Amino acid sequence: MTQKTVEKTPVTLLGLGAMGTELARTWLSAGHPLTVWNRTPARAAALAAEGAEVAGSAADAVAANTLVVVCLLDDASVDEALDGADLAGKDLVNLITGTPAQARARAEWARARGARYLDGGMMAVPPMIGVPEAGGYVFYSGSREVFEQHRETLAVPVGTTYVGEDAGFAALYDVALLSAMYGMSAGIAHAFALIRKEDIDPASLAPLLTDWLVAMAPSAHLTAEQLRSGDYTKGVVSRLAMQVAGTPTFLGTAEQQGVSTELLSPYFELMRRRLAGGGGDEDLTGVVDLLVR
Amino acid sequence: MTQKTVEKTPVTLLGLGAMGTELARTWLSAGHPLTVWNRTPARAAALAAEGAEVAGSAADAVAANTLVVVCLLDDASVDEALDGADLAGKDLVNLITGTPAQARARAEWARARGARYLDGGMMAVPPMIGVPEAGGYVFYSGSREVFEQHRETLAVPVGTTYVGEDAGFAALYDVALLSAMYGMSAGIAHAFALIRKEDIDPASLAPLLTDWLVAMAPSAHLTAEQLRSGDYTKGVVSRLAMQVAGTPTFLGTAEQQGVSTELLSPYFELMRRRLAGGGGDEDLTGVVDLLVR
Repeated sequence: MTQKTVEKTPVTLLGLGAMGTELARTWLSAGHPLTVWNRTPARAAALAAEGAEVAGSAADAVAANTLVVVCLLDDASVDEALDGADLAGKDLVNLITGTPAQARARAEWARARGARYLDGGMMAVPPMIGVPEAGGYVFYSGSREVFEQHRETLAVPVGTTYVGEDAGFAALYDVALLSAMYGMSAGIAHAFALIRKEDIDPASLAPLLTDWLVAMAPSAHLTAEQLRSGDYTKGVVSRLAMQVAGTPTFLGTAEQQGVSTELLSPYFELMRRRLAGGGGDEDLTGVVDLLVR
Repeated sequence: MTQKTVEKTPVTLLGLGAMGTELARTWLSAGHPLTVWNRTPARAAALAAEGAEVAGSAADAVAANTLVVVCLLDDASVDEALDGADLAGKDLVNLITGTPAQARARAEWARARGARYLDGGMMAVPPMIGVPEAGGYVFYSGSREVFEQHRETLAVPVGTTYVGEDAGFAALYDVALLSAMYGMSAGIAHAFALIRKEDIDPASLAPLLTDWLVAMAPSAHLTAEQLRSGDYTKGVVSRLAMQVAGTPTFLGTAEQQGVSTELLSPYFELMRRRLAGGGGDEDLTGVVDLLVR
């Protein structure tokens, strides 16, 4: 058997926080030539020992390779770091977490400087990098050409999901999923608060909570179907009217357990508004429309 | 091979709404003699054709068997239906959804009338009844003797999970899990609202949302461990300070998409309060304590 040496795409990486450092390590391990830059140089030293080229400035790092991945703190730090760098002919992949509008503005900014632009929304925490079975991935949107050309390189540290040419979509999907997660976290916090003063081990509630949420999460599919069709009564298992009738039990239990209802009430209030608007036979989907101005 | 005929426990069931009707059918199919009563008699007629005895009054239905299962609308309807029934020597299993305090009061009420009492918290919707693979179950608490004695009969329509002698615990677990689910639903509603005006098919977001929530739901285990140990910094992946720093992106994205932040802000506000109180290196677990008075 003959072994073919495949030349790995060289990568420039700006930003060596917890996430950037993990990205750097997986690229190095996979044999990609890597040039790094970090505002505080100390963090780059360890990577130099692992084979990374350490650039003296962000501009030098950018000059080293065509593929430039940005993993800095925020949108403002991109301006700061790339001020003075020559981006002409570069493929800029921006992994900072921002809003869709920031991503779209950054795409324009890159285009004006002669670079192709791909925005990323990170659905992973550092311990998931380089661990495919952990299920982390990055949403990408913007230049399809950049995505296709660098797809394999980008997939080395963590999975990839391309969601469209609109540079803002990666951030939008990212924020949508993380916002949903904060909703779930709020629900979990309320659940643990309810048993806080009881003689109940939180570790006995946790698996029940997890299993229930895992079983109920696919309800998002029915919500999506209802939003598509515009018929929110289709496939309903628990009518809104019945669910609203149940809310005093939830609020009353919180009251009895000495738990604030501030995380539950806003959703119940929207359910009530939709019921008052005539949605009694619907699912909970009408709440989505009440949120949109 | 010889076949042994096992005598099935006769059951009295009060209440034939959607849930009661499903329970009745599975008990009848499994060969349990069944006596039913419903306030509006029409609903009982169909079950009579399937082999159920239809009692003329709730008191007659109670008199027919030792095991009496209540699946009425609410706590008040239990008083109404059982006013005048002789409960002495009965095993009362109450499946109505109420607060822990209502369940405890009902347990006292049953004891005063000479009945043993088991409270149930239904973690299933009617289509899950008689479908073991659907994963529905009922939390039970109160008399352990009643649970043990009737365990097999109670497990015929839907799974069982006993959570303690305190009659209020079934309701408490029930409300805790459903409250967490409403939190998740609120998060899902916000996520769909964010893409409502974009050219994005909700059905393309749904599987991403579901997978992410399923992947993140087990975070409840870490929360439980932190609550147990009192050390909220243990095992932290994303520090509270970092997460609070990210909240403007979530709120700003909602703003840009024309989506109200009313479902997100209360949780972020609690995160900020905990951070202000010195919890920057912690996980989000401190929010639980802010909820409890």
